[in-house]
Amino acid sequence: MSHSLKQQNSLLNTLATPLAVRLAAREGQLTGPTSGLANGFVQVNLVILPEEQATGFLRFCQANPKPCPLLAVSEPGARFCSKLGDDLDIARDVPSYQIFRHGKHACSVNDVSNDWRDDLVTFALGCSFTFEHALISNGLRVRHIDENRNVPMYNTTLALESAGGFGGNLVVSMRPFPAADAIRAVQITTRYPQVHGEPVHLGNPALIGISDLNTPDYGDAVTCEEHELPVFWACGVTPHKVLMDAGVEFAITHAPGHMLVTDIPDYRLALF
Amino acid sequence: MSHSLKQQNSLLNTLATPLAVRLAAREGQLTGPTSGLANGFVQVNLVILPEEQATGFLRFCQANPKPCPLLAVSEPGARFCSKLGDDLDIARDVPSYQIFRHGKHACSVNDVSNDWRDDLVTFALGCSFTFEHALISNGLRVRHIDENRNVPMYNTTLALESAGGFGGNLVVSMRPFPAADAIRAVQITTRYPQVHGEPVHLGNPALIGISDLNTPDYGDAVTCEEHELPVFWACGVTPHKVLMDAGVEFAITHAPGHMLVTDIPDYRLALF
Repeated sequence: MSHSLKQQNSLLNTLATPLAVRLAAREGQLTGPTSGLANGFVQVNLVILPEEQATGFLRFCQANPKPCPLLAVSEPGARFCSKLGDDLDIARDVPSYQIFRHGKHACSVNDVSNDWRDDLVTFALGCSFTFEHALISNGLRVRHIDENRNVPMYNTTLALESAGGFGGNLVVSMRPFPAADAIRAVQITTRYPQVHGEPVHLGNPALIGISDLNTPDYGDAVTCEEHELPVFWACGVTPHKVLMDAGVEFAITHAPGHMLVTDIPDYRLALF
Repeated sequence: MSHSLKQQNSLLNTLATPLAVRLAAREGQLTGPTSGLANGFVQVNLVILPEEQATGFLRFCQANPKPCPLLAVSEPGARFCSKLGDDLDIARDVPSYQIFRHGKHACSVNDVSNDWRDDLVTFALGCSFTFEHALISNGLRVRHIDENRNVPMYNTTLALESAGGFGGNLVVSMRPFPAADAIRAVQITTRYPQVHGEPVHLGNPALIGISDLNTPDYGDAVTCEEHELPVFWACGVTPHKVLMDAGVEFAITHAPGHMLVTDIPDYRLALF
C-alpha cells in the first residue's frame, strides 16, 4: 500500500460520524466522494440559489416531490441549517462544489465562502444513498455498487410539472433486479418518500423514452441480465438539469457524489 | 328484463350485508357467485378436511402463507367460527360447495349438512377479492373485471415449501397493468398480507414456467397490451391443487367464485 493511500485510508477510518466528515471537508482534508462515509446517516443533494430564483424553485420542488424531495430549505444568506446538523457550514462542509453561471458549469471548488451572498437560499434534497442502504440491509444487491461504478442515469420523456418558471422532463436512475427483488425494492423504497420513494417505472425502457440502457446520459452503464428487470427511480440530477435548462444566472450545487453529510439517521426517513 | 332476471336483481339488491348473503345461501335462495355481494366485507376460500389430514394441512398453510393465508381455523366438527361472523353456518352459508373423494371432484352441492362429520376442520383462507377492491378503490383497473371474465390462473415452476405431507408448485393469478400501475399495485397489495399480499412475479411469464399467457390453466384469458406488464400473485387455487395432488380421501371446498362472506370489514385486513 502506498503512503498516500495509507494516509487516505487512515483518514476514511476516522470519518465514522457526520460531524467528522463535515469537519474534514471544512478543513480541506476531504475533497473526494462521500459514498460509504458516516454510514447510517442521511446525505443530501444541495442546490443553492439567489432568493429571486429560489422562490420559483421552491414551488417547482413542491410540485415535483419525487425528483426533488425537500428535506430542508434555509433562510436567505444562512450558512447553517439546524434541521440538518448543529455544527454545520453550508459553504465549506461539502468536499466539492460546482458553481454555475448563466446555466453553464463555471468551476468546481472545495469551498464557496468567497462566493457566498446574503441572498443565497439552500435547498437540501434527499438522495438515493439512503434507500440504497435500505435495499442492501434488506439483502438486495445493488448492481452499480457491486460493479464499483456510478449509478446509470437517463433523460426520459416523462414530463415534470412546470412551476415557478422551471420545467422539463424527469431524469431517472436505474438499478436492475430479478422480478422478485424488484417487487421487494418497490416495497422497501416506498418506505422512503423523502429520498425519491418507490420507482417511477420498471421493465421496457423505451416506454419512457430510453432507447439504449447501455448508453446512460449520466453515470456509468451497468450489467442488466436477461432475466432481470431494469427498475427506474426519479433522480436528483433532475433539478440540476432543470436549472441548467432554465439558464439560471447563478447557482451552486454539490459535485456529483460529493454530498453534504447530515446528522439525520437514515431510519428517521422511514415512513414505517 | 325477464321475470326471473328481475327476481334475481331484486334478490341481489337485498344482499348488501354479509348476514343477508349467508342467510340467502342458507335458505337456498342464493346459489350463484358472491362477487359484488356485501361489498366491503371479506370473502374467504374454504377448505374443510378430516382432522387426520387437517393437522398436516395446517403445517402446510403455515409454511406457505402467500398462497394459503389463514384467517381462521375451526375446532374439529364445529360449524360455526366466531372470528368470521356471529350467525354463521359453515355447512350451509356458502352458495355452492365442491366435495372431493380420493383426490377427485365427486359432486357440487348447495348444502353439506348431510355430509358433515364430527372430525371436520374448516380452514378459512384470504381471497383476492379483498385486494381487488383495494386496487379499484385506488383508481386501478382490474382487467378481468373490466372484461367480465374470471381471473386467469396458471400453474408455475415455483416450488412450494413441503410440509405436513403436502407440496407441489405454486398456482398464480395474473392481472396486467402499465408499469406505473404495477408499482402502485405492489404498494397496495403489500398492505394486505392476509389476502396473498404483494405479487410473487412480474414481467416475463416464462421465468416462472408459464409458456403462454393466452392459455391459462384455470379461469379465462384476458387482454394484455404490448405496453403492459403481467403481474402475478399467489393464488388460492394452490391449496385445492395440492389437496387433489395428494389424493386426500375426503375434502369439501367452496365452488370457485362461491365464497363464504364474513362479517370482517375489508379495511380490517389492511396492515397500514
